[in-house]
Amino acid sequence: MVICAEKATPADRSSDRVLALSTGDPTMFEPYWRKMGDKGKVVIRGGDLMSYFSDMKNECWFLEPELRDAIRRLHRVVGNAVTDDRHVVAGTGSTQLFQALLYALTTPGGAEPVSVVSSAPYYSSYPEVVELLRSELYKWAGDANTFDKDGPYIEVVCSPNNPDGAVRQAVVNRGDQRQVIYDLAYYWPQYTAITGPADHDIMLFTSSKCTGHAGSRVGWAIVKDKDVAKKMIEYITISSIGVSKESQVRAAKIIGAVCDGCQGVGSDVESDNFFEYARDIMSKRWQKVRQALDHQNEYLNNLIKYPRQRCLFTGEFTESLPAYAWLKCKGGIEDCEEFFSGRGIVGKGGKRFGADPKFNRISLLCREEDFNLFVERLGAIARISNGL
Amino acid sequence: MVICAEKATPADRSSDRVLALSTGDPTMFEPYWRKMGDKGKVVIRGGDLMSYFSDMKNECWFLEPELRDAIRRLHRVVGNAVTDDRHVVAGTGSTQLFQALLYALTTPGGAEPVSVVSSAPYYSSYPEVVELLRSELYKWAGDANTFDKDGPYIEVVCSPNNPDGAVRQAVVNRGDQRQVIYDLAYYWPQYTAITGPADHDIMLFTSSKCTGHAGSRVGWAIVKDKDVAKKMIEYITISSIGVSKESQVRAAKIIGAVCDGCQGVGSDVESDNFFEYARDIMSKRWQKVRQALDHQNEYLNNLIKYPRQRCLFTGEFTESLPAYAWLKCKGGIEDCEEFFSGRGIVGKGGKRFGADPKFNRISLLCREEDFNLFVERLGAIARISNGL
Repeated sequence: MVICAEKATPADRSSDRVLALSTGDPTMFEPYWRKMGDKGKVVIRGGDLMSYFSDMKNECWFLEPELRDAIRRLHRVVGNAVTDDRHVVAGTGSTQLFQALLYALTTPGGAEPVSVVSSAPYYSSYPEVVELLRSELYKWAGDANTFDKDGPYIEVVCSPNNPDGAVRQAVVNRGDQRQVIYDLAYYWPQYTAITGPADHDIMLFTSSKCTGHAGSRVGWAIVKDKDVAKKMIEYITISSIGVSKESQVRAAKIIGAVCDGCQGVGSDVESDNFFEYARDIMSKRWQKVRQALDHQNEYLNNLIKYPRQRCLFTGEFTESLPAYAWLKCKGGIEDCEEFFSGRGIVGKGGKRFGADPKFNRISLLCREEDFNLFVERLGAIARISNGL
Repeated sequence: MVICAEKATPADRSSDRVLALSTGDPTMFEPYWRKMGDKGKVVIRGGDLMSYFSDMKNECWFLEPELRDAIRRLHRVVGNAVTDDRHVVAGTGSTQLFQALLYALTTPGGAEPVSVVSSAPYYSSYPEVVELLRSELYKWAGDANTFDKDGPYIEVVCSPNNPDGAVRQAVVNRGDQRQVIYDLAYYWPQYTAITGPADHDIMLFTSSKCTGHAGSRVGWAIVKDKDVAKKMIEYITISSIGVSKESQVRAAKIIGAVCDGCQGVGSDVESDNFFEYARDIMSKRWQKVRQALDHQNEYLNNLIKYPRQRCLFTGEFTESLPAYAWLKCKGGIEDCEEFFSGRGIVGKGGKRFGADPKFNRISLLCREEDFNLFVERLGAIARISNGL
């Protein structure tokens, strides 16, 4: 289990410490929320939120109404997803919602498990989750680009993509056999241009990558079909009897603060716009990564192939600023994860994403001091090694 | 999905409203926590708890250290479980921990799925969870009392038992083929005598039934074997990337307040002892239930067959005060759930617990006004009908 294998601890601030950048832990956003003071603060009293139930009038009985309203407002403000006449389902992170969808989109008693595919490189969690319990309902079938099996299938489209930041569409298009899950965790202005409100049947989002609150384990699905939403709710009812209320009310407060900041509600002279703030940091970080590599951009993410696009949220033409650097080693270096690891940078190797081990994914969402140490080391690697 | 089918809403306070008593929603405990004021209050600022990680030095990297410490202290104070030299694993309710155990106690590639059994009447969630994803790792094999299949198996022992309050031990005893999960959700002084610290290899607890905070979705496992704990952590890592931090810090605060109250820390003249308070209410409620049935105790839980036992926590001889009334209809009434439902009391029928449909489980953990309405209706049923 890679996450636990990481040796670095938050308390370790030595300059020779190992940098744990294999997960997309979004601690980069902490200073913004510290600065926001009471605007992001929640107070929960001992007698609050004790019941299993949030809203018995709603099909999604465990969804706090204030979170539902905050989610709808956020998508309206950002303009990144259609929510009118859609169902909102909350989950313990988008990870649980993905499992709820696998349950909702399959039926017991089928001739064989439904194939689940995604274009490589794909988010490493998809195969892990699909294979976890050896379900008879579904099974992992790998790279969508080479998938040619008959019968029903589920394609997961992550856009912008984890790990490489690419803007994606479904690649297997087989009419009525098709179910597509759009994982839009990174479709926010700090990572990419918002080119319009996404209007897919099934869309996943998560607090982790939107506002940076990974510890809350709150995600949400925007779902068109009522029966799919009902089966998702059934899954979450059975597997965890709902979703933490504390996390939900906090996410509602945080999202509310983001919306207020975007709309200039109660803003000071200095802008409270979260996405401007976050985009500014991401932009500076990418500049430094490119500088460290001495502008050897050919070693970087595919993203540089994508044209600058007009972001309807910022109103500006912008480049993609992915959450991860997706680096490829050259020359004789066969295992990029190992190569970096030996130099104090723990990433996640290409193999986990269905790609060549010459690739390595490095999170750029870490705290400032870790990021600075990363680019310092990356620069040293780039200077001394033709291997990168 | 029974939970969602309930029509009553918290806002519905009419005297002819339907009473939704099919889940063990522990709202009974709300007044205690309201009374406790700041002692149970948490304040979470926008920049707090943002990371996935709670403690990178701990195998269970997503467990907040303050929750771990609070759990150990609570079991020491109450004396209901051994925690020394045991691993503490947190979960999204004990429901997720049960799934983590099914994963931890089985191995892919076995000749056939491992059988999971529990003595009927068993908690309705066990078969639902086991069968949810049609796993090849394990399958539901029903009542432990009639289980006679060879090969490895997992027995779940809920004690005191949900639904009937019985104190239980494992019934299938087949040496090295055996794995036993002790679900001790109700092994707290408000429900039963604490006869000694439980010392099983695997024990499950949950905030829902201990302090009444069901909405938090926080449970914990006390596990002897390191490898079992590691595999549980792996499951929770993959299936939900940890457990809500907000819920964990709140549970730590709440549990700390319970411990302080038991130990007289900062107590006023009036006792703050949560378990005394809760036991007092449970005792009064059971008196009223018996009165409503006009002392026709033969229709009530098996619990009345159990002798009064000395509780090491209170120091007194006490009777069991189960969280549920497990009622049996007599005469021509075949479906007790339906019978009660037609009279405005929604319980959960025996069939869901692997028992006769003549049984019905009614939660006694509801709010005071719902409970009073329940006993009123129960009294009317008992008076007019020989059928109960």
